[in-house]
Amino acid sequence: MSKPLGKILSEGKTKKVRETENSDVALLEFKDSITVLDGEKMDVLRGKAVINAHISAYFLEILEKKGVPTHYIEFVEPNMMKVKNLEMLPVEIVCRNIAAGHLVKNYPIKEGTLLNPPVVEFYLKDDARHDPMLNEDHFLILGLASRGEVKKIKEITLKTNRILSDALKAKGLTLVDFKIEVGRGTDGKIYVGDEINGDSMRIWEVGTDKILDKDVYRKGGTMEQVLNTYIQLYQKLLGKMPPIRGTKNE
Amino acid sequence: MSKPLGKILSEGKTKKVRETENSDVALLEFKDSITVLDGEKMDVLRGKAVINAHISAYFLEILEKKGVPTHYIEFVEPNMMKVKNLEMLPVEIVCRNIAAGHLVKNYPIKEGTLLNPPVVEFYLKDDARHDPMLNEDHFLILGLASRGEVKKIKEITLKTNRILSDALKAKGLTLVDFKIEVGRGTDGKIYVGDEINGDSMRIWEVGTDKILDKDVYRKGGTMEQVLNTYIQLYQKLLGKMPPIRGTKNE
Repeated sequence: MSKPLGKILSEGKTKKVRETENSDVALLEFKDSITVLDGEKMDVLRGKAVINAHISAYFLEILEKKGVPTHYIEFVEPNMMKVKNLEMLPVEIVCRNIAAGHLVKNYPIKEGTLLNPPVVEFYLKDDARHDPMLNEDHFLILGLASRGEVKKIKEITLKTNRILSDALKAKGLTLVDFKIEVGRGTDGKIYVGDEINGDSMRIWEVGTDKILDKDVYRKGGTMEQVLNTYIQLYQKLLGKMPPIRGTKNE
Repeated sequence: MSKPLGKILSEGKTKKVRETENSDVALLEFKDSITVLDGEKMDVLRGKAVINAHISAYFLEILEKKGVPTHYIEFVEPNMMKVKNLEMLPVEIVCRNIAAGHLVKNYPIKEGTLLNPPVVEFYLKDDARHDPMLNEDHFLILGLASRGEVKKIKEITLKTNRILSDALKAKGLTLVDFKIEVGRGTDGKIYVGDEINGDSMRIWEVGTDKILDKDVYRKGGTMEQVLNTYIQLYQKLLGKMPPIRGTKNE
């Protein structure tokens, strides 16, 4: 029998943060839940936790190798990542290469428009206020980050965008947009935290109109279609079936 | 009899733009209408046009004298300003010294909080999309302005804030926040355009909780209370009663 898992420090809609013996290190445990609209719509998608934990580890390892500071330490079977404990900023950072989603809904720009330069947006994580957009002045007056930190966050985001775009392109995929979250390490520096996977990215297959991310769920796909999408993304990235029930690897 | 006014080039909720013999010059004619909520609530306030035209001219003259480029040329009785014809940006620029209005509604910050530094926000003028907030990247991808222009607009806004704050302070008033609009002149440079008055500012009386701006209307004040507010602002700034019916100056 393996050791019992550490105490739950916090629990979000799709992940739990567990303590470890080392207070600088936490265990990020992925859940099978899938949710949109600030949690108004939620379902359970058996196998998603394993898939998203693996894909997050895959992307975070690539970022680390290419010099982006992240919280990633190592993968822990079957659905966890050992990570640096960060003081997370309550901010979602969105980076867009192609117009889709909120950008198309809120601004006079057509879906599919190539964005040059890529657009970086900041949103306050505040479900009750529907995640209002932040500009750099808001960071200061809300005490979220200094001007220098905001600049650094934007730099890290654009570098992350270049690395993830290249990694996906090599697999025949287009990175439409993605969301990251960041936090301060014990050294006071900014690190990419949280997760990077089909829940937090829009990915289109090059040459087809196939969607390989949570938009299949947002747009009302069946649970089978949604799970199949996550499985396909895993396959395309890792070149094998994910280790979940009902797939060949189990 | 005076010459007939030029053709109406465009008409907004509270102003008309008329052509003049010189294509580089327009006539801005203020209307008596008052409106909030993207035009959903609208009333007629007899005398407001004259008051707001005078107050706008008053502030624009101060800005010009202090070196802020504006469209202002001269006042034209009774409710007009001769102005440089600008290619206006469809953007509202908001500058805040004290938390109020949208900032308090949308962000976790209390009304009355002193903002240091002042907060500058950009909104796309798009009633149908409820004026979405813009960041600097949005200016580029929507083709609104270059990075250099956005920087210049922010500089002009902060300088305008310092000048207007000082001018109001000298009259015992606090500039809580204000909105300006800008455009490109025939020389390609950025100028402050549009109007600056009780419709586009929040002004509180120092030492009391008296509001001297459109918030009296937003908060459901009677037409008499609203007109009285505009008359008081005029009096405090110009040291006399406005030249409208029912006031001593007529």
